[in-house]
Amino acid sequence: MADQVKIHGFWYSPFTLRVVLTLKLKGIPYENIEEDRFNKSPQLLQYNPVHKKTPVLVHDGKPLRESMIIVEYIDEIWPQYPLLPVDPFERAQARFWVKYVDDIIPVVGALFRSGGDEERKNIIAKIWEHLKVVEEQCIDYEKKLFGGDTVNIVDIALGPTIKFLVTIEDIIEFKILQAEKFPHLHTWFDNFKNVPVIGENLPDHEKLIAFLKALIQK
Amino acid sequence: MADQVKIHGFWYSPFTLRVVLTLKLKGIPYENIEEDRFNKSPQLLQYNPVHKKTPVLVHDGKPLRESMIIVEYIDEIWPQYPLLPVDPFERAQARFWVKYVDDIIPVVGALFRSGGDEERKNIIAKIWEHLKVVEEQCIDYEKKLFGGDTVNIVDIALGPTIKFLVTIEDIIEFKILQAEKFPHLHTWFDNFKNVPVIGENLPDHEKLIAFLKALIQK
Repeated sequence: MADQVKIHGFWYSPFTLRVVLTLKLKGIPYENIEEDRFNKSPQLLQYNPVHKKTPVLVHDGKPLRESMIIVEYIDEIWPQYPLLPVDPFERAQARFWVKYVDDIIPVVGALFRSGGDEERKNIIAKIWEHLKVVEEQCIDYEKKLFGGDTVNIVDIALGPTIKFLVTIEDIIEFKILQAEKFPHLHTWFDNFKNVPVIGENLPDHEKLIAFLKALIQK
Repeated sequence: MADQVKIHGFWYSPFTLRVVLTLKLKGIPYENIEEDRFNKSPQLLQYNPVHKKTPVLVHDGKPLRESMIIVEYIDEIWPQYPLLPVDPFERAQARFWVKYVDDIIPVVGALFRSGGDEERKNIIAKIWEHLKVVEEQCIDYEKKLFGGDTVNIVDIALGPTIKFLVTIEDIIEFKILQAEKFPHLHTWFDNFKNVPVIGENLPDHEKLIAFLKALIQK
Protein backbone atom coordinates (compact mmCIF):
# COMPACT_ATOMS: atom_id res chain seq x y z
CA MET A 1 0.00 0.00 0.00
CA ALA A 2 1.26 3.49 -0.79
CA ASP A 3 2.25 5.71 2.09
CA GLN A 4 -0.43 8.08 3.30
CA VAL A 5 1.04 11.54 3.75
CA LYS A 6 -0.79 14.66 4.90
CA ILE A 7 0.40 18.15 5.78
CA HIS A 8 -1.51 20.39 8.17
CA GLY A 9 -0.13 23.84 7.42
CA PHE A 10 -0.49 27.41 6.21
CA TRP A 11 0.31 27.98 2.52
CA TYR A 12 1.95 31.31 3.39
CA SER A 13 4.16 30.02 6.23
CA PRO A 14 7.93 29.59 5.76
CA PHE A 15 7.79 26.64 8.14
CA THR A 16 5.14 24.81 6.11
CA LEU A 17 7.02 25.70 2.91
CA ARG A 18 10.11 23.81 4.10
CA VAL A 19 8.07 20.62 4.38
CA VAL A 20 6.28 21.20 1.06
CA LEU A 21 9.56 21.76 -0.82
CA THR A 22 11.10 18.66 0.76
CA LEU A 23 8.21 16.45 -0.32
CA LYS A 24 8.20 17.98 -3.81
CA LEU A 25 11.98 17.46 -4.24
CA LYS A 26 11.57 13.83 -3.26
CA GLY A 27 8.49 13.39 -5.42
CA ILE A 28 6.24 12.22 -2.61
CA PRO A 29 2.51 12.78 -3.17
CA TYR A 30 0.65 14.22 -0.19
CA GLU A 31 -2.68 15.63 0.81
CA ASN A 32 -2.65 19.27 1.87
CA ILE A 33 -4.89 20.27 4.76
CA GLU A 34 -4.96 24.06 4.91
CA GLU A 35 -5.38 25.25 8.50
CA ASP A 36 -7.06 28.48 9.57
CA ARG A 37 -4.79 30.22 12.08
CA PHE A 38 -7.79 31.66 13.91
CA ASN A 39 -9.67 28.37 14.02
CA LYS A 40 -7.31 25.42 13.97
CA SER A 41 -8.69 21.97 13.27
CA PRO A 42 -9.29 19.55 16.16
CA GLN A 43 -6.90 17.15 14.39
CA LEU A 44 -4.08 19.69 14.50
CA LEU A 45 -4.63 20.34 18.21
CA GLN A 46 -4.66 16.61 18.82
CA TYR A 47 -1.51 16.03 16.78
CA ASN A 48 0.44 18.89 18.33
CA PRO A 49 -1.00 19.42 21.82
CA VAL A 50 2.23 20.96 23.16
CA HIS A 51 2.67 23.84 20.69
CA LYS A 52 -0.64 23.72 18.75
CA LYS A 53 1.41 24.84 15.76
CA THR A 54 1.76 24.01 12.08
CA PRO A 55 3.22 22.32 10.18
CA VAL A 56 2.30 18.81 11.22
CA LEU A 57 3.14 15.98 8.85
CA VAL A 58 0.96 12.91 9.29
CA HIS A 59 2.60 9.80 7.88
CA ASP A 60 0.45 6.67 7.99
CA GLY A 61 -1.44 8.13 10.95
CA LYS A 62 1.68 9.17 12.90
CA PRO A 63 2.08 12.91 13.55
CA LEU A 64 5.45 14.65 13.16
CA ARG A 65 6.06 18.18 14.44
CA GLU A 66 8.63 20.99 14.06
CA SER A 67 9.51 21.86 10.48
CA MET A 68 13.19 20.92 10.41
CA ILE A 69 12.61 17.73 12.43
CA ILE A 70 9.98 16.80 9.84
CA VAL A 71 12.49 17.49 7.05
CA GLU A 72 15.06 15.16 8.69
CA TYR A 73 12.35 12.52 9.16
CA ILE A 74 11.35 12.71 5.49
CA ASP A 75 15.02 12.45 4.54
CA GLU A 76 15.41 9.30 6.65
CA ILE A 77 12.25 7.63 5.34
CA TRP A 78 12.59 8.53 1.64
CA PRO A 79 16.27 8.47 0.67
CA GLN A 80 15.83 9.78 -2.91
CA TYR A 81 17.27 13.30 -3.35
CA PRO A 82 19.22 13.14 -0.05
CA LEU A 83 19.24 16.40 1.91
CA LEU A 84 21.79 15.62 4.61
CA PRO A 85 25.46 14.95 3.85
CA VAL A 86 26.64 11.40 4.54
CA ASP A 87 29.79 12.37 6.43
CA PRO A 88 29.06 12.90 10.16
CA PHE A 89 31.19 16.06 10.38
CA GLU A 90 29.46 17.61 7.39
CA ARG A 91 26.07 16.55 8.78
CA ALA A 92 26.91 18.38 12.02
CA GLN A 93 27.97 21.48 10.06
CA ALA A 94 24.71 21.37 8.11
CA ARG A 95 22.72 21.04 11.34
CA PHE A 96 24.65 23.99 12.79
CA TRP A 97 23.57 26.20 9.87
CA VAL A 98 20.01 24.93 10.02
CA LYS A 99 19.87 25.98 13.68
CA TYR A 100 21.46 29.32 12.85
CA VAL A 101 18.92 30.01 10.13
CA ASP A 102 16.09 28.89 12.40
CA ASP A 103 17.05 31.63 14.82
CA ILE A 104 16.53 34.28 12.10
CA ILE A 105 12.82 33.61 11.54
CA PRO A 106 11.62 34.94 14.93
CA VAL A 107 13.54 38.16 14.25
CA VAL A 108 11.90 38.51 10.82
CA GLY A 109 8.57 37.73 12.49
CA ALA A 110 9.17 40.54 14.98
CA LEU A 111 9.61 42.91 12.02
CA PHE A 112 6.22 41.80 10.76
CA ARG A 113 4.62 42.79 14.05
CA SER A 114 6.80 45.84 14.81
CA GLY A 115 5.21 49.17 15.59
CA GLY A 116 7.45 52.24 15.83
CA ASP A 117 10.33 53.36 13.61
CA GLU A 118 12.92 52.94 16.34
CA GLU A 119 11.84 49.35 17.01
CA ARG A 120 11.90 48.56 13.29
CA LYS A 121 15.41 50.01 12.93
CA ASN A 122 16.71 47.81 15.75
CA ILE A 123 15.13 44.70 14.27
CA ILE A 124 16.57 45.44 10.83
CA ALA A 125 20.02 45.89 12.37
CA LYS A 126 19.64 42.46 14.02
CA ILE A 127 18.55 40.85 10.73
CA TRP A 128 21.53 42.41 8.97
CA GLU A 129 23.87 40.98 11.60
CA HIS A 130 22.45 37.52 10.94
CA LEU A 131 22.49 37.90 7.17
CA LYS A 132 26.10 39.07 7.24
CA VAL A 133 27.09 35.76 8.80
CA VAL A 134 25.11 33.86 6.15
CA GLU A 135 26.62 36.04 3.41
CA GLU A 136 30.10 35.03 4.56
CA GLN A 137 29.05 31.40 4.33
CA CYS A 138 27.83 31.97 0.78
CA ILE A 139 31.26 33.17 -0.31
CA ASP A 140 32.20 29.75 -1.57
CA TYR A 141 32.41 30.29 -5.30
CA GLU A 142 32.54 26.65 -6.20
CA LYS A 143 29.09 26.02 -4.84
CA LYS A 144 25.80 27.12 -6.33
CA LEU A 145 23.84 26.01 -3.28
CA PHE A 146 24.70 24.86 0.23
CA GLY A 147 24.28 21.33 -1.11
CA GLY A 148 26.64 22.02 -4.04
CA ASP A 149 24.71 21.58 -7.29
CA THR A 150 21.66 20.17 -5.54
CA VAL A 151 19.53 21.46 -2.69
CA ASN A 152 20.45 20.30 0.82
CA ILE A 153 18.91 20.74 4.26
CA VAL A 154 20.50 24.19 4.77
CA ASP A 155 18.98 25.43 1.51
CA ILE A 156 15.62 24.05 2.66
CA ALA A 157 15.90 25.89 5.98
CA LEU A 158 17.15 29.16 4.48
CA GLY A 159 15.11 29.44 1.27
CA PRO A 160 11.67 29.89 2.83
CA THR A 161 13.21 32.25 5.41
CA ILE A 162 14.56 34.53 2.68
CA LYS A 163 11.31 34.22 0.71
CA PHE A 164 9.46 35.39 3.85
CA LEU A 165 11.93 38.24 4.32
CA VAL A 166 11.69 39.57 0.75
CA THR A 167 7.90 39.47 1.03
CA ILE A 168 7.92 41.53 4.20
CA GLU A 169 10.33 43.96 2.52
CA ASP A 170 7.65 44.73 -0.04
CA ILE A 171 5.04 45.16 2.67
CA ILE A 172 7.07 47.57 4.79
CA GLU A 173 8.56 49.12 1.63
CA PHE A 174 12.14 48.86 2.76
CA LYS A 175 14.81 46.71 1.09
CA ILE A 176 16.62 44.62 3.70
CA LEU A 177 18.40 42.05 1.53
CA GLN A 178 20.26 44.74 -0.40
CA ALA A 179 22.23 43.43 -3.39
CA GLU A 180 25.26 45.63 -2.62
CA LYS A 181 25.34 44.44 0.98
CA PHE A 182 24.68 40.76 0.33
CA PRO A 183 25.77 39.94 -3.22
CA HIS A 184 26.47 36.24 -2.59
CA LEU A 185 23.28 35.67 -0.67
CA HIS A 186 21.45 37.25 -3.61
CA THR A 187 23.12 34.91 -6.08
CA TRP A 188 22.38 31.98 -3.81
CA PHE A 189 18.68 32.93 -3.61
CA ASP A 190 18.51 33.19 -7.42
CA ASN A 191 20.15 29.77 -7.75
CA PHE A 192 17.69 28.38 -5.22
CA LYS A 193 14.64 29.77 -7.05
CA ASN A 194 16.06 28.49 -10.36
CA VAL A 195 15.91 24.87 -9.23
CA PRO A 196 12.74 23.93 -11.17
CA VAL A 197 10.96 22.05 -8.34
CA ILE A 198 11.66 24.97 -6.00
CA GLY A 199 10.63 27.78 -8.35
CA GLU A 200 7.40 26.02 -9.28
CA ASN A 201 6.37 25.50 -5.68
CA LEU A 202 7.08 28.85 -4.07
CA PRO A 203 3.91 30.76 -3.18
CA ASP A 204 2.97 33.51 -5.63
CA HIS A 205 4.59 36.79 -4.52
CA GLU A 206 1.62 39.13 -5.11
CA LYS A 207 -0.86 36.74 -3.53
CA LEU A 208 1.46 36.40 -0.52
CA ILE A 209 1.76 40.16 -0.09
CA ALA A 210 -2.01 40.65 -0.33
CA PHE A 211 -2.65 37.90 2.19
CA LEU A 212 -0.05 39.07 4.71
CA LYS A 213 -1.22 42.68 4.44
CA ALA A 214 -4.74 41.55 5.29
CA LEU A 215 -3.34 39.45 8.17
CA ILE A 216 -1.55 42.48 9.65
CA GLN A 217 -4.87 44.37 9.64
CA LYS A 218 -6.38 41.66 11.84
CA MET B 1 45.92 6.04 15.91
CA ALA B 2 43.45 6.80 18.67
CA ASP B 3 40.98 9.64 18.12
CA GLN B 4 42.00 12.96 19.54
CA VAL B 5 39.07 14.48 21.40
CA LYS B 6 39.03 17.80 23.24
CA ILE B 7 36.24 19.77 24.89
CA HIS B 8 36.40 23.53 25.26
CA GLY B 9 33.81 24.24 27.94
CA PHE B 10 32.77 25.47 31.37
CA TRP B 11 32.61 22.78 34.08
CA TYR B 12 29.50 24.47 35.53
CA SER B 13 27.56 24.80 32.26
CA PRO B 14 24.58 22.56 31.49
CA PHE B 15 25.52 22.71 27.80
CA THR B 16 29.06 21.45 28.41
CA LEU B 17 27.70 18.83 30.82
CA ARG B 18 25.62 17.27 28.02
CA VAL B 19 28.76 16.66 25.98
CA VAL B 20 30.75 15.41 28.98
CA LEU B 21 28.03 12.91 29.98
CA THR B 22 27.74 11.66 26.40
CA LEU B 23 31.48 11.00 26.13
CA LYS B 24 31.53 9.34 29.56
CA LEU B 25 28.57 7.07 28.71
CA LYS B 26 30.35 5.98 25.56
CA GLY B 27 33.68 5.57 27.33
CA ILE B 28 35.57 7.98 25.09
CA PRO B 29 38.67 9.55 26.64
CA TYR B 30 39.04 13.28 26.05
CA GLU B 31 41.08 16.27 27.07
CA ASN B 32 39.18 18.98 28.95
CA ILE B 33 40.09 22.58 28.18
CA GLU B 34 38.44 24.75 30.80
CA GLU B 35 37.52 28.13 29.32
CA ASP B 36 37.29 31.40 31.25
CA ARG B 37 34.02 33.12 30.34
CA PHE B 38 35.62 36.53 30.78
CA ASN B 39 38.69 35.68 28.74
CA LYS B 40 37.98 33.00 26.17
CA SER B 41 40.89 31.25 24.46
CA PRO B 42 41.89 32.27 20.92
CA GLN B 43 41.26 28.64 19.90
CA LEU B 44 37.64 28.84 21.05
CA LEU B 45 37.06 32.07 19.15
CA GLN B 46 38.62 30.51 16.08
CA TYR B 47 36.57 27.31 16.40
CA ASN B 48 33.27 29.09 16.98
CA PRO B 49 33.55 32.53 15.32
CA VAL B 50 29.78 32.83 14.87
CA HIS B 51 28.61 32.42 18.47
CA LYS B 52 31.94 32.47 20.37
CA LYS B 53 30.28 30.02 22.75
CA THR B 54 31.11 26.80 24.56
CA PRO B 55 30.99 23.88 24.30
CA VAL B 56 33.14 23.15 21.30
CA LEU B 57 34.19 19.56 20.70
CA VAL B 58 37.35 19.20 18.68
CA HIS B 59 37.64 15.78 17.06
CA ASP B 60 40.90 15.13 15.21
CA GLY B 61 41.24 18.86 14.67
CA LYS B 62 37.68 19.43 13.45
CA PRO B 63 35.51 21.72 15.59
CA LEU B 64 31.88 20.85 16.39
CA ARG B 65 29.50 23.40 17.91
CA GLU B 66 26.08 23.49 19.63
CA SER B 67 25.69 21.02 22.49
CA MET B 68 22.91 18.82 21.08
CA ILE B 69 24.44 18.79 17.59
CA ILE B 70 27.68 17.63 19.21
CA VAL B 71 25.77 14.89 21.05
CA GLU B 72 24.24 13.65 17.76
CA TYR B 73 27.68 13.76 16.13
CA ILE B 74 29.24 11.70 18.92
CA ASP B 75 26.35 9.24 18.62
CA GLU B 76 26.99 8.87 14.88
CA ILE B 77 30.76 8.46 15.24
CA TRP B 78 30.83 6.16 18.27
CA PRO B 79 27.86 3.81 18.12
CA GLN B 80 28.38 2.13 21.52
CA TYR B 81 25.64 3.06 24.05
CA PRO B 82 23.34 4.48 21.32
CA LEU B 83 21.45 7.61 22.33
CA LEU B 84 19.02 7.97 19.43
CA PRO B 85 16.29 5.43 18.69
CA VAL B 86 16.72 3.46 15.46
CA ASP B 87 13.14 3.93 14.22
CA PRO B 88 12.77 7.20 12.26
CA PHE B 89 9.45 8.09 13.92
CA GLU B 90 10.88 7.56 17.39
CA ARG B 91 14.02 9.51 16.40
CA ALA B 92 11.80 12.42 15.36
CA GLN B 93 9.89 12.22 18.65
CA ALA B 94 13.17 12.24 20.58
CA ARG B 95 14.38 15.26 18.58
CA PHE B 96 11.08 17.02 19.30
CA TRP B 97 11.62 16.62 23.06
CA VAL B 98 15.27 17.64 22.80
CA LYS B 99 14.16 20.87 21.12
CA TYR B 100 11.44 21.38 23.73
CA VAL B 101 13.90 20.95 26.58
CA ASP B 102 16.41 23.24 24.86
CA ASP B 103 13.83 26.00 24.99
CA ILE B 104 13.66 25.70 28.81
CA ILE B 105 17.31 26.62 29.48
CA PRO B 106 17.05 30.29 28.40
CA VAL B 107 14.07 30.68 30.76
CA VAL B 108 16.05 29.15 33.63
CA GLY B 109 18.96 31.40 32.67
CA ALA B 110 16.66 34.43 32.88
CA LEU B 111 15.83 33.41 36.46
CA PHE B 112 19.53 33.41 37.23
CA ARG B 113 19.78 37.03 36.08
CA SER B 114 16.37 38.22 37.28
CA GLY B 115 16.10 41.28 39.44
CA GLY B 116 12.74 42.09 41.03
CA ASP B 117 10.20 39.80 42.73
CA GLU B 118 7.57 40.37 40.05
CA GLU B 119 9.97 39.42 37.24
CA ARG B 120 11.07 36.33 39.16
CA LYS B 121 7.44 35.28 39.71
CA ASN B 122 6.70 35.52 35.99
CA ILE B 123 9.77 33.49 35.07
CA ILE B 124 8.92 30.80 37.62
CA ALA B 125 5.38 30.60 36.18
CA LYS B 126 6.90 30.09 32.73
CA ILE B 127 9.25 27.38 33.98
CA TRP B 128 6.33 25.62 35.67
CA GLU B 129 4.39 25.68 32.42
CA HIS B 130 7.30 23.99 30.65
CA LEU B 131 7.90 21.47 33.44
CA LYS B 132 4.22 20.53 33.49
CA VAL B 133 4.52 19.43 29.88
CA VAL B 134 7.63 17.40 30.69
CA GLU B 135 5.93 15.94 33.80
CA GLU B 136 3.10 14.67 31.60
CA GLN B 137 5.69 13.01 29.38
CA CYS B 138 7.25 11.33 32.41
CA ILE B 139 3.94 9.68 33.32
CA ASP B 140 4.91 6.53 31.52
CA TYR B 141 5.23 4.06 34.34
CA GLU B 142 6.95 1.40 32.33
CA LYS B 143 9.98 3.56 31.69
CA LYS B 144 12.66 4.56 34.16
CA LEU B 145 14.21 7.02 31.73
CA PHE B 146 13.25 8.51 28.36
CA GLY B 147 15.48 5.85 26.83
CA GLY B 148 13.73 3.07 28.78
CA ASP B 149 16.27 1.38 31.08
CA THR B 150 19.17 3.24 29.51
CA VAL B 151 19.88 6.92 28.94
CA ASN B 152 18.88 8.39 25.59
CA ILE B 153 19.29 11.77 23.91
CA VAL B 154 16.26 13.28 25.68
CA ASP B 155 17.71 12.30 29.08
CA ILE B 156 21.01 13.89 28.01
CA ALA B 157 19.23 17.12 27.04
CA LEU B 158 17.02 17.26 30.14
CA GLY B 159 19.33 16.02 32.91
CA PRO B 160 21.79 18.94 32.88
CA THR B 161 18.86 21.36 32.52
CA ILE B 162 17.24 20.03 35.70
CA LYS B 163 20.60 19.91 37.48
CA PHE B 164 21.04 23.61 36.59
CA LEU B 165 17.50 24.38 37.80
CA VAL B 166 17.87 22.67 41.20
CA THR B 167 21.15 24.51 41.72
CA ILE B 168 19.55 27.87 41.06
CA GLU B 169 16.72 26.89 43.40
CA ASP B 170 19.23 26.69 46.23
CA ILE B 171 20.73 30.03 45.27
CA ILE B 172 17.45 31.92 45.14
CA GLU B 173 16.12 29.84 48.06
CA PHE B 174 12.88 28.88 46.36
CA LYS B 175 11.87 25.34 45.41
CA ILE B 176 10.69 25.25 41.77
CA LEU B 177 10.75 21.53 41.04
CA GLN B 178 8.34 20.78 43.86
CA ALA B 179 7.84 17.06 44.53
CA GLU B 180 4.04 17.44 44.95
CA LYS B 181 3.76 19.32 41.67
CA PHE B 182 6.13 17.18 39.61
CA PRO B 183 6.30 13.71 41.21
CA HIS B 184 7.21 11.85 38.01
CA LEU B 185 9.85 14.33 36.95
CA HIS B 186 11.32 13.92 40.45
CA THR B 187 11.44 10.15 40.06
CA TRP B 188 12.93 10.53 36.61
CA PHE B 189 15.68 12.84 37.92
CA ASP B 190 16.49 10.34 40.69
CA ASN B 191 16.68 7.53 38.13
CA PHE B 192 18.92 9.68 35.96
CA LYS B 193 21.32 10.49 38.80
CA ASN B 194 21.36 6.82 39.82
CA VAL B 195 22.87 5.75 36.52
CA PRO B 196 26.45 5.27 37.80
CA VAL B 197 28.26 7.06 34.95
CA ILE B 198 25.85 9.99 35.30
CA GLY B 199 25.97 10.30 39.10
CA GLU B 200 29.75 10.13 39.13
CA ASN B 201 30.13 12.88 36.57
CA LEU B 202 27.67 15.53 37.74
CA PRO B 203 29.39 18.62 39.16
CA ASP B 204 29.48 18.78 42.96
CA HIS B 205 26.37 20.60 44.21
CA GLU B 206 28.01 22.77 46.89
CA LYS B 207 30.93 23.71 44.65
CA LEU B 208 28.46 24.63 41.91
CA ILE B 209 26.42 26.85 44.22
CA ALA B 210 29.52 28.62 45.52
CA PHE B 211 30.79 29.23 42.00
CA LEU B 212 27.49 30.49 40.59
CA LYS B 213 26.93 32.78 43.61
CA ALA B 214 30.33 34.33 42.95
CA LEU B 215 29.46 34.63 39.24
CA ILE B 216 26.22 36.51 40.04
CA GLN B 217 28.27 38.99 42.08
CA LYS B 218 30.34 39.78 38.99
